[in-house]
Amino acid sequence: MTRRPNLAVVGATGAVGEVLLGLLSLRQDVWGEIRLVASPRSAGRKPVVRGEPVEVVPLTEAAFDGIDVAVFAVPDVVSAQWAPVAAARGVVVVDDSAAFRTAEDVPLVVPEVNAAALRIRPRGIVASPASTTLAMIAAVGALHAEYGLVELVVASYQAASGEGRLGEAALREQTALVGGVEIGRQTGDLRAVIADHGPFAAPLALNAVPWTGTLADGGWSSEELGIRDESRKILSLPALKVSATCVRIPVVRTHALAVHAVFEREVTQEHAQEILGDAPGVVVYDNPEAGEFPTPNDVVGTDPVWVGRVRRALDEPAALDLFLCGDNLRKGAALNLLQIAELVAGEPRPA
Amino acid sequence: MTRRPNLAVVGATGAVGEVLLGLLSLRQDVWGEIRLVASPRSAGRKPVVRGEPVEVVPLTEAAFDGIDVAVFAVPDVVSAQWAPVAAARGVVVVDDSAAFRTAEDVPLVVPEVNAAALRIRPRGIVASPASTTLAMIAAVGALHAEYGLVELVVASYQAASGEGRLGEAALREQTALVGGVEIGRQTGDLRAVIADHGPFAAPLALNAVPWTGTLADGGWSSEELGIRDESRKILSLPALKVSATCVRIPVVRTHALAVHAVFEREVTQEHAQEILGDAPGVVVYDNPEAGEFPTPNDVVGTDPVWVGRVRRALDEPAALDLFLCGDNLRKGAALNLLQIAELVAGEPRPA
Repeated sequence: MTRRPNLAVVGATGAVGEVLLGLLSLRQDVWGEIRLVASPRSAGRKPVVRGEPVEVVPLTEAAFDGIDVAVFAVPDVVSAQWAPVAAARGVVVVDDSAAFRTAEDVPLVVPEVNAAALRIRPRGIVASPASTTLAMIAAVGALHAEYGLVELVVASYQAASGEGRLGEAALREQTALVGGVEIGRQTGDLRAVIADHGPFAAPLALNAVPWTGTLADGGWSSEELGIRDESRKILSLPALKVSATCVRIPVVRTHALAVHAVFEREVTQEHAQEILGDAPGVVVYDNPEAGEFPTPNDVVGTDPVWVGRVRRALDEPAALDLFLCGDNLRKGAALNLLQIAELVAGEPRPA
Repeated sequence: MTRRPNLAVVGATGAVGEVLLGLLSLRQDVWGEIRLVASPRSAGRKPVVRGEPVEVVPLTEAAFDGIDVAVFAVPDVVSAQWAPVAAARGVVVVDDSAAFRTAEDVPLVVPEVNAAALRIRPRGIVASPASTTLAMIAAVGALHAEYGLVELVVASYQAASGEGRLGEAALREQTALVGGVEIGRQTGDLRAVIADHGPFAAPLALNAVPWTGTLADGGWSSEELGIRDESRKILSLPALKVSATCVRIPVVRTHALAVHAVFEREVTQEHAQEILGDAPGVVVYDNPEAGEFPTPNDVVGTDPVWVGRVRRALDEPAALDLFLCGDNLRKGAALNLLQIAELVAGEPRPA
């Protein structure tokens, strides 16, 4: 390569963007220019990247001039409109939204699991999975390689920041409101105190809300179907059986998942722990007697997926039960985007 | 019956006891004397029952003189010691602890599901299931009667009051501590602010703790095994496949469960909703488009198990995915105890 590739960060001032800029200052620097792009409302701000303030430019066609790789951390509709614009200008787009995840001609990539899928990208767009899928897929992928995955039953414990800055702010406000109050003793207490649910379908502080995403057929949510579609695509298992129930809980950051995974071959607890311990991007933290299991708070700001509570199912020798935590803004979004972008940057290119 | 039976409430001043006394004032009154019993430390207090203050007496053999039925809402070790003492004096004991739940000669009863099991109680002791099991079993039992249950995969979202008054107080304190603070942005934030975890294995406010109960073989927790053992016993399905992962979340009261249930026969979403709607002790609240699904806060202080998010599994026509909420102190403890005690009170007795 004759020069370092130039990177655009689209959505640089959002919750994922903020984490992404932090990572750019921490990781090995492979980039030439790093251009920050956001909505006109945020243009002009000067976040610090690699130790220097960088002025945010508005999202226009010109924002992609001279850019080689663009990571998009913006809402679905913005990606749907602008990713093709950037790609048409020769930019490789790495997109965090749901807009392209299930498109047949867009690879869906988790570098630890299916980096090779990155090579075939006829539209010039690469998608990154949802943060829920990313909270488990490196671990599940490693187990699949050994045992052959047949079925996943997933229950999520999702953080408020899955709804971006709005979600995080809403949970903080709600928590402050209920902090000193005798809440939770009578039906609907929270509804009396919390008038504004923010982006959630019900009050979230001191509660659990079994709804994320939008309504799909059969009572399923888009997020639940996304876990199914994305797991199938990433693992190249189009017939994988998947049932997911997605629930928002009052945690600021880091998703957790309870996963029941059924395989073709028998498993043992120890061997599964070994496989997970050897898997890239996965940390095993699993000694309940010593209080060792991942909790969202202990995982915030870390790169890997953390796995604990590894158990062989008592009534099914080819099944495991697990509890996993992954920072939804880091591996669940910014880190995976950046890992993909770095792989693209490292590809041999025409001079 | 020549006279109304006399009831003793053992553990009258605890979290479950408090709810039980409230229910005694609300429900049809079938009792003669209601005697309140607690540890010597709480003796002398005068909670109001049926509109009158009643003095709490200490737990001694004499506390059971003249008593017909005693409900026990005390720790396992207290039940293990004192339930046989009461039973030996001819009292029918209805016990909320785990001490007798899996004993072969003690029936484990949920009136909506297996009231008949109450009849055979050679030790004079009847057990009530754990609050987690009770958050689902009326609904699951109704579905089993129609479809034939084969397997359950359960993930719990358990409330702090599952650890009694201590648990509730600890969550309130922790929530007040983090209420106004920028918590949850960095690894271990909560551990820096919350020095005392209370009865939990890690800080609970703005977190999720995948551990309840004590450690059993294979990395399982006693509570997870309890859901398996109790479901099998109540449904008379000794070979039922069950995998549960139990997680405490920052909710004061009411447990929630995500349940994946596999049956012998094909299901449909509508038919399952009908069965659940007709089931005693079950309410269906299931219209996500209109924001209708149960949340713990909306269920606190109500009698039934609430079921929402009823979906037929996409890859298994004989499986359902559900989200359920049940007040862990009410149907999960006090109400089920009282329902059993009322059934005993209504039995024909020798004059």
